[in-house]
Amino acid sequence: MATPLTTLGLELPTDPRWTDIAAMHIGDILIDHAYCEQKAASSCISLIVHYPEKALLVETLTPIVIEEWGHFQRVLKELKKRNIPLGRQRKDEYVGQLMKLATKKGEHEKALLDKLLIFGLIEARSCERFKLLSETLEDESLQKFYRELMVSEAGHYRTFLELAETYVPQAEVRARWKELLHAEAEIMRTLTPRGDRIH
Amino acid sequence: MATPLTTLGLELPTDPRWTDIAAMHIGDILIDHAYCEQKAASSCISLIVHYPEKALLVETLTPIVIEEWGHFQRVLKELKKRNIPLGRQRKDEYVGQLMKLATKKGEHEKALLDKLLIFGLIEARSCERFKLLSETLEDESLQKFYRELMVSEAGHYRTFLELAETYVPQAEVRARWKELLHAEAEIMRTLTPRGDRIH
Repeated sequence: MATPLTTLGLELPTDPRWTDIAAMHIGDILIDHAYCEQKAASSCISLIVHYPEKALLVETLTPIVIEEWGHFQRVLKELKKRNIPLGRQRKDEYVGQLMKLATKKGEHEKALLDKLLIFGLIEARSCERFKLLSETLEDESLQKFYRELMVSEAGHYRTFLELAETYVPQAEVRARWKELLHAEAEIMRTLTPRGDRIH
Repeated sequence: MATPLTTLGLELPTDPRWTDIAAMHIGDILIDHAYCEQKAASSCISLIVHYPEKALLVETLTPIVIEEWGHFQRVLKELKKRNIPLGRQRKDEYVGQLMKLATKKGEHEKALLDKLLIFGLIEARSCERFKLLSETLEDESLQKFYRELMVSEAGHYRTFLELAETYVPQAEVRARWKELLHAEAEIMRTLTPRGDRIH
Protein backbone atom coordinates (compact mmCIF):
# COMPACT_ATOMS: atom_id res chain seq x y z
CA MET A 1 0.00 0.00 0.00
CA ALA A 2 1.33 3.39 -0.89
CA THR A 3 2.14 5.83 1.93
CA PRO A 4 -0.71 8.35 2.13
CA LEU A 5 0.38 11.77 0.96
CA THR A 6 -0.26 14.82 3.07
CA THR A 7 -0.34 18.33 1.66
CA LEU A 8 2.61 19.65 -0.29
CA GLY A 9 4.12 16.23 -0.89
CA LEU A 10 5.12 15.52 2.74
CA GLU A 11 5.27 11.76 3.23
CA LEU A 12 4.26 11.60 6.86
CA PRO A 13 1.31 13.50 8.30
CA THR A 14 1.85 15.08 11.71
CA ASP A 15 1.09 12.86 14.69
CA PRO A 16 -2.44 13.91 15.78
CA ARG A 17 -1.23 14.09 19.39
CA TRP A 18 0.94 17.08 18.48
CA THR A 19 -1.99 19.41 17.81
CA ASP A 20 -3.65 18.68 21.14
CA ILE A 21 -0.47 19.20 23.18
CA ALA A 22 0.41 22.31 21.16
CA ALA A 23 -2.98 23.86 21.90
CA MET A 24 -2.24 23.40 25.61
CA HIS A 25 1.16 25.15 25.31
CA ILE A 26 0.29 28.08 23.12
CA GLY A 27 2.81 30.39 24.86
CA ASP A 28 5.70 28.02 24.09
CA ILE A 29 4.38 27.50 20.56
CA LEU A 30 4.32 31.25 19.93
CA ILE A 31 7.87 31.71 21.25
CA ASP A 32 9.15 28.85 19.11
CA HIS A 33 7.19 30.22 16.15
CA ALA A 34 8.80 33.67 16.55
CA TYR A 35 12.24 32.07 16.23
CA CYS A 36 11.11 30.01 13.22
CA GLU A 37 10.26 33.28 11.46
CA GLN A 38 13.56 34.84 12.57
CA LYS A 39 15.50 31.84 11.23
CA ALA A 40 13.55 31.95 7.96
CA ALA A 41 14.46 35.64 7.50
CA SER A 42 18.11 35.01 8.46
CA SER A 43 18.31 32.02 6.08
CA CYS A 44 17.10 34.12 3.14
CA ILE A 45 19.64 36.85 4.01
CA SER A 46 22.35 34.20 4.17
CA LEU A 47 21.40 32.84 0.71
CA ILE A 48 21.55 36.36 -0.74
CA VAL A 49 25.00 36.99 0.78
CA HIS A 50 26.31 33.61 -0.45
CA TYR A 51 24.84 33.75 -3.97
CA PRO A 52 24.84 37.49 -4.92
CA GLU A 53 25.68 36.58 -8.54
CA LYS A 54 22.27 34.90 -8.91
CA ALA A 55 20.14 37.95 -9.73
CA LEU A 56 16.81 36.09 -9.73
CA LEU A 57 17.51 34.54 -6.32
CA VAL A 58 18.46 37.95 -4.86
CA GLU A 59 15.40 39.61 -6.35
CA THR A 60 13.03 36.84 -5.25
CA LEU A 61 14.29 36.42 -1.69
CA THR A 62 14.70 40.12 -0.84
CA PRO A 63 10.93 40.72 -0.38
CA ILE A 64 10.56 37.36 1.38
CA VAL A 65 12.91 38.62 4.13
CA ILE A 66 10.44 41.48 4.71
CA GLU A 67 7.51 39.01 4.82
CA GLU A 68 9.20 36.63 7.26
CA TRP A 69 10.30 39.47 9.49
CA GLY A 70 6.77 40.90 9.31
CA HIS A 71 5.55 37.53 10.63
CA PHE A 72 8.12 37.71 13.45
CA GLN A 73 6.68 41.11 14.33
CA ARG A 74 3.12 39.74 14.31
CA VAL A 75 4.05 36.80 16.55
CA LEU A 76 5.67 39.30 18.96
CA LYS A 77 2.34 41.16 19.10
CA GLU A 78 0.47 37.93 19.90
CA LEU A 79 2.98 37.27 22.71
CA LYS A 80 2.57 40.82 24.04
CA LYS A 81 -1.25 40.52 24.04
CA ARG A 82 -0.81 37.53 26.33
CA ASN A 83 1.92 39.15 28.50
CA ILE A 84 4.39 36.44 27.49
CA PRO A 85 8.02 37.58 27.14
CA LEU A 86 9.90 36.39 24.04
CA GLY A 87 12.25 34.13 25.99
CA ARG A 88 15.39 32.47 24.71
CA GLN A 89 15.61 30.46 21.52
CA ARG A 90 15.37 26.69 22.10
CA LYS A 91 17.34 24.02 20.30
CA ASP A 92 15.58 23.12 17.05
CA GLU A 93 16.22 19.38 16.71
CA TYR A 94 14.14 19.10 13.52
CA VAL A 95 15.89 21.86 11.58
CA GLY A 96 19.27 20.75 12.99
CA GLN A 97 18.78 17.23 11.64
CA LEU A 98 17.52 18.49 8.27
CA MET A 99 20.52 20.79 7.85
CA LYS A 100 22.85 17.82 8.41
CA LEU A 101 21.48 16.37 5.14
CA ALA A 102 22.75 19.37 3.15
CA THR A 103 25.79 18.93 0.93
CA LYS A 104 28.44 21.16 2.49
CA LYS A 105 31.26 20.45 0.09
CA GLY A 106 31.23 19.98 -3.65
CA GLU A 107 29.84 22.29 -6.27
CA HIS A 108 28.42 25.69 -5.42
CA GLU A 109 25.19 24.73 -7.29
CA LYS A 110 24.75 21.42 -5.44
CA ALA A 111 25.03 23.15 -2.08
CA LEU A 112 22.50 25.74 -3.27
CA LEU A 113 20.09 23.02 -4.41
CA ASP A 114 20.16 21.35 -1.01
CA LYS A 115 19.67 24.62 0.86
CA LEU A 116 16.72 25.65 -1.33
CA LEU A 117 15.05 22.26 -1.01
CA ILE A 118 15.59 22.03 2.75
CA PHE A 119 14.17 25.54 3.23
CA GLY A 120 11.25 24.43 1.02
CA LEU A 121 10.73 21.37 3.23
CA ILE A 122 10.69 23.49 6.39
CA GLU A 123 8.11 25.81 4.79
CA ALA A 124 5.99 22.80 3.76
CA ARG A 125 6.04 21.28 7.25
CA SER A 126 5.33 24.68 8.84
CA CYS A 127 2.43 25.12 6.45
CA GLU A 128 1.00 21.73 7.46
CA ARG A 129 1.34 22.56 11.15
CA PHE A 130 -0.11 26.07 10.79
CA LYS A 131 -3.11 24.47 9.07
CA LEU A 132 -3.57 22.13 12.04
CA LEU A 133 -3.25 25.04 14.49
CA SER A 134 -5.77 27.08 12.50
CA GLU A 135 -8.25 24.19 12.77
CA THR A 136 -7.64 23.30 16.42
CA LEU A 137 -7.00 26.44 18.45
CA GLU A 138 -10.00 27.90 20.23
CA ASP A 139 -8.85 31.54 20.00
CA GLU A 140 -10.48 32.89 16.84
CA SER A 141 -7.85 35.56 16.19
CA LEU A 142 -5.13 32.87 16.33
CA GLN A 143 -7.14 30.60 13.98
CA LYS A 144 -7.22 33.45 11.46
CA PHE A 145 -3.56 34.28 12.05
CA TYR A 146 -2.43 30.72 11.39
CA ARG A 147 -4.66 30.40 8.33
CA GLU A 148 -3.05 33.48 6.80
CA LEU A 149 0.44 32.30 7.64
CA MET A 150 -0.31 28.85 6.22
CA VAL A 151 -1.08 30.47 2.84
CA SER A 152 2.09 32.54 3.01
CA GLU A 153 4.30 29.52 3.84
CA ALA A 154 2.76 27.54 0.97
CA GLY A 155 3.79 30.40 -1.34
CA HIS A 156 7.36 30.36 -0.02
CA TYR A 157 7.55 26.58 -0.41
CA ARG A 158 6.70 26.95 -4.11
CA THR A 159 9.18 29.82 -4.48
CA PHE A 160 12.07 27.73 -3.12
CA LEU A 161 11.25 24.83 -5.44
CA GLU A 162 10.90 27.10 -8.46
CA LEU A 163 14.20 28.79 -7.67
CA ALA A 164 15.84 25.36 -7.45
CA GLU A 165 14.53 24.50 -10.93
CA THR A 166 15.94 27.77 -12.28
CA TYR A 167 19.47 26.89 -11.30
CA VAL A 168 19.56 23.09 -11.52
CA PRO A 169 18.09 20.75 -14.20
CA GLN A 170 14.53 19.72 -13.33
CA ALA A 171 15.22 15.96 -13.26
CA GLU A 172 18.01 16.48 -10.74
CA VAL A 173 15.83 18.73 -8.57
CA ARG A 174 12.98 16.20 -8.54
CA ALA A 175 15.25 13.24 -7.71
CA ARG A 176 16.86 15.13 -4.82
CA TRP A 177 13.47 16.42 -3.62
CA LYS A 178 12.17 12.84 -3.43
CA GLU A 179 15.21 11.80 -1.37
CA LEU A 180 14.79 14.75 0.97
CA LEU A 181 11.03 14.21 1.38
CA HIS A 182 11.83 10.67 2.43
CA ALA A 183 14.58 11.78 4.82
CA GLU A 184 12.28 14.41 6.34
CA ALA A 185 9.64 11.75 7.02
CA GLU A 186 12.30 9.61 8.71
CA ILE A 187 13.33 12.53 10.94
CA MET A 188 9.68 13.18 11.84
CA ARG A 189 9.18 9.50 12.64
CA THR A 190 12.08 9.41 15.09
CA LEU A 191 11.38 12.74 16.84
CA THR A 192 9.05 12.60 19.83
CA PRO A 193 6.18 15.00 19.11
CA ARG A 194 6.73 18.07 21.32
CA GLY A 195 3.83 20.34 22.03
CA ASP A 196 6.14 23.25 22.79
CA ARG A 197 7.69 23.36 19.31
CA ILE A 198 6.33 24.17 15.85
CA HIS A 199 8.35 21.20 14.48
CA MET B 1 42.94 73.89 20.41
CA ALA B 2 39.95 71.59 20.68
CA THR B 3 39.33 69.10 17.87
CA PRO B 4 36.52 70.45 15.69
CA LEU B 5 33.36 68.42 16.10
CA THR B 6 31.52 67.09 13.09
CA THR B 7 27.86 66.09 13.15
CA LEU B 8 26.67 63.58 15.72
CA GLY B 9 29.75 63.93 17.90
CA LEU B 10 32.22 62.28 15.50
CA GLU B 11 35.69 63.59 16.28
CA LEU B 12 37.18 63.43 12.81
CA PRO B 13 35.41 64.73 9.71
CA THR B 14 35.71 62.57 6.60
CA ASP B 15 38.74 63.27 4.42
CA PRO B 16 37.39 65.51 1.61
CA ARG B 17 39.15 63.31 -0.95
CA TRP B 18 36.75 60.46 -0.12
CA THR B 19 33.70 62.21 -1.56
CA ASP B 20 35.36 62.91 -4.89
CA ILE B 21 36.67 59.38 -5.35
CA ALA B 22 33.35 57.90 -4.19
CA ALA B 23 31.44 59.93 -6.79
CA MET B 24 33.68 58.39 -9.45
CA HIS B 25 32.96 54.82 -8.22
CA ILE B 26 29.25 54.98 -7.62
CA GLY B 27 28.71 51.34 -8.67
CA ASP B 28 31.15 50.10 -6.02
CA ILE B 29 29.69 52.50 -3.48
CA LEU B 30 26.18 51.17 -4.10
CA ILE B 31 27.32 47.53 -3.78
CA ASP B 32 29.16 48.29 -0.54
CA HIS B 33 26.15 50.27 0.68
CA ALA B 34 23.81 47.32 0.01
CA TYR B 35 25.94 45.15 2.30
CA CYS B 36 26.06 47.89 4.95
CA GLU B 37 22.27 47.76 5.09
CA GLN B 38 22.31 43.95 5.15
CA LYS B 39 24.79 43.95 8.04
CA ALA B 40 22.73 46.55 9.89
CA ALA B 41 19.61 44.36 9.58
CA SER B 42 21.55 41.22 10.59
CA SER B 43 23.10 43.03 13.58
CA CYS B 44 19.68 44.04 14.90
CA ILE B 45 18.41 40.47 14.46
CA SER B 46 21.47 39.22 16.33
CA LEU B 47 20.85 41.65 19.24
CA ILE B 48 17.23 40.46 19.48
CA VAL B 49 18.29 36.80 19.54
CA HIS B 50 20.99 37.46 22.18
CA TYR B 51 18.90 39.73 24.45
CA PRO B 52 15.29 38.43 24.14
CA GLU B 53 14.68 39.18 27.83
CA LYS B 54 15.05 42.92 27.13
CA ALA B 55 11.51 43.70 25.95
CA LEU B 56 12.21 47.33 25.02
CA LEU B 57 15.24 46.36 22.93
CA VAL B 58 13.22 43.68 21.10
CA GLU B 59 10.32 46.03 20.50
CA THR B 60 12.55 48.91 19.35
CA LEU B 61 14.83 46.93 17.03
CA THR B 62 12.15 44.77 15.38
CA PRO B 63 10.83 47.59 13.13
CA ILE B 64 14.40 48.81 12.49
CA VAL B 65 15.16 45.44 10.84
CA ILE B 66 12.31 46.17 8.39
CA GLU B 67 13.67 49.68 7.74
CA GLU B 68 17.25 48.52 7.16
CA TRP B 69 16.11 45.71 4.90
CA GLY B 70 13.87 48.17 3.06
CA HIS B 71 17.01 50.25 2.41
CA PHE B 72 18.79 47.14 1.12
CA GLN B 73 15.90 46.66 -1.29
CA ARG B 74 16.11 50.30 -2.44
CA VAL B 75 19.86 50.06 -3.04
CA LEU B 76 19.23 46.90 -5.10
CA LYS B 77 16.81 48.92 -7.26
CA GLU B 78 19.43 51.64 -7.80
CA LEU B 79 21.91 48.94 -8.85
CA LYS B 80 19.37 47.39 -11.22
CA LYS B 81 18.59 50.78 -12.83
CA ARG B 82 22.30 50.98 -13.68
CA ASN B 83 22.59 47.30 -14.76
CA ILE B 84 25.12 46.65 -12.01
CA PRO B 85 24.95 43.15 -10.45
CA LEU B 86 25.09 42.99 -6.63
CA GLY B 87 28.50 41.32 -6.55
CA ARG B 88 30.21 39.75 -3.57
CA GLN B 89 30.58 41.35 -0.19
CA ARG B 90 33.99 42.98 0.36
CA LYS B 91 36.00 42.97 3.55
CA ASP B 92 34.87 45.83 5.77
CA GLU B 93 38.07 46.97 7.46
CA TYR B 94 36.35 49.82 9.31
CA VAL B 95 33.60 47.73 10.91
CA GLY B 96 36.07 44.89 11.55
CA GLN B 97 38.35 47.20 13.55
CA LEU B 98 35.45 48.76 15.44
CA MET B 99 34.09 45.35 16.44
CA LYS B 100 37.50 44.45 17.90
CA LEU B 101 36.92 47.21 20.49
CA ALA B 102 33.81 45.45 21.84
CA THR B 103 34.00 43.71 25.19
CA LYS B 104 33.51 40.04 24.39
CA LYS B 105 33.78 38.65 27.89
CA GLY B 106 32.52 39.99 31.17
CA GLU B 107 29.03 41.02 32.05
CA HIS B 108 26.11 40.52 29.69
CA GLU B 109 25.24 44.25 30.10
CA LYS B 110 28.77 45.48 29.36
CA ALA B 111 28.86 43.49 26.12
CA LEU B 112 25.44 44.91 25.22
CA LEU B 113 26.62 48.47 25.93
CA ASP B 114 29.58 48.10 23.58
CA LYS B 115 27.49 46.58 20.81
CA LEU B 116 24.84 49.30 21.03
CA LEU B 117 27.44 52.07 21.04
CA ILE B 118 29.45 50.59 18.18
CA PHE B 119 26.28 50.16 16.09
CA GLY B 120 25.47 53.80 16.99
CA LEU B 121 28.93 54.88 15.81
CA ILE B 122 28.51 53.07 12.49
CA GLU B 123 25.13 54.77 12.00
CA ALA B 124 26.67 58.16 12.82
CA ARG B 125 29.53 57.72 10.36
CA SER B 126 27.15 56.40 7.68
CA CYS B 127 24.94 59.41 8.29
CA GLU B 128 27.90 61.77 7.81
CA ARG B 129 28.93 60.01 4.59
CA PHE B 130 25.38 59.88 3.20
CA LYS B 131 25.18 63.64 3.80
CA LEU B 132 28.39 64.13 1.80
CA LEU B 133 27.07 61.91 -1.01
CA SER B 134 23.76 63.79 -1.06
CA GLU B 135 25.69 67.04 -1.51
CA THR B 136 28.23 65.81 -4.05
CA LEU B 137 26.62 63.33 -6.43
CA GLU B 138 25.36 64.74 -9.70
CA ASP B 139 22.46 62.29 -10.09
CA GLU B 140 19.47 64.06 -8.55
CA SER B 141 17.60 60.88 -7.62
CA LEU B 142 20.68 59.66 -5.73
CA GLN B 143 21.04 63.02 -3.97
CA LYS B 144 17.46 62.65 -2.74
CA PHE B 145 17.99 58.99 -1.86
CA TYR B 146 21.04 59.73 0.27
CA ARG B 147 19.37 62.69 1.95
CA GLU B 148 16.48 60.47 3.04
CA LEU B 149 18.80 57.73 4.24
CA MET B 150 20.90 60.26 6.14
CA VAL B 151 17.82 61.23 8.17
CA SER B 152 16.99 57.58 8.81
CA GLU B 153 20.52 56.73 9.99
CA ALA B 154 20.53 59.74 12.32
CA GLY B 155 17.34 58.36 13.88
CA HIS B 156 18.90 54.92 14.35
CA TYR B 157 22.01 56.48 15.91
CA ARG B 158 19.82 58.15 18.54
CA THR B 159 17.88 54.92 19.10
CA PHE B 160 21.02 52.93 19.85
CA LEU B 161 22.26 55.56 22.33
CA GLU B 162 18.87 55.81 24.03
CA LEU B 163 18.68 52.03 24.33
CA ALA B 164 22.14 52.01 25.90
CA GLU B 165 20.97 54.54 28.51
CA THR B 166 17.96 52.37 29.31
CA TYR B 167 20.09 49.42 30.32
CA VAL B 168 23.27 51.02 31.68
CA PRO B 169 23.69 54.07 33.98
CA GLN B 170 24.00 57.30 31.97
CA ALA B 171 27.42 58.27 33.35
CA GLU B 172 28.85 54.90 32.31
CA VAL B 173 27.32 55.17 28.85
CA ARG B 174 28.73 58.66 28.31
CA ALA B 175 32.22 57.72 29.49
CA ARG B 176 32.33 54.67 27.20
CA TRP B 177 30.85 56.68 24.31
CA LYS B 178 33.66 59.23 24.63
CA GLU B 179 36.27 56.44 24.56
CA LEU B 180 34.67 54.87 21.51
CA LEU B 181 34.32 58.18 19.65
CA HIS B 182 38.03 58.68 20.19
CA ALA B 183 38.87 55.14 19.05
CA GLU B 184 36.68 55.55 15.97
CA ALA B 185 38.54 58.72 15.00
CA GLU B 186 41.85 56.86 15.42
CA ILE B 187 40.61 54.06 13.12
CA MET B 188 39.49 56.63 10.54
CA ARG B 189 42.85 58.38 10.76
CA THR B 190 44.78 55.18 9.99
CA LEU B 191 42.52 53.86 7.20
CA THR B 192 43.35 55.02 3.68
CA PRO B 193 40.21 56.68 2.29
CA ARG B 194 38.72 54.24 -0.25
CA GLY B 195 36.31 55.55 -2.82
CA ASP B 196 34.77 52.11 -3.30
CA ARG B 197 33.55 51.80 0.29
CA ILE B 198 30.97 53.66 2.36
CA HIS B 199 33.43 53.60 5.30
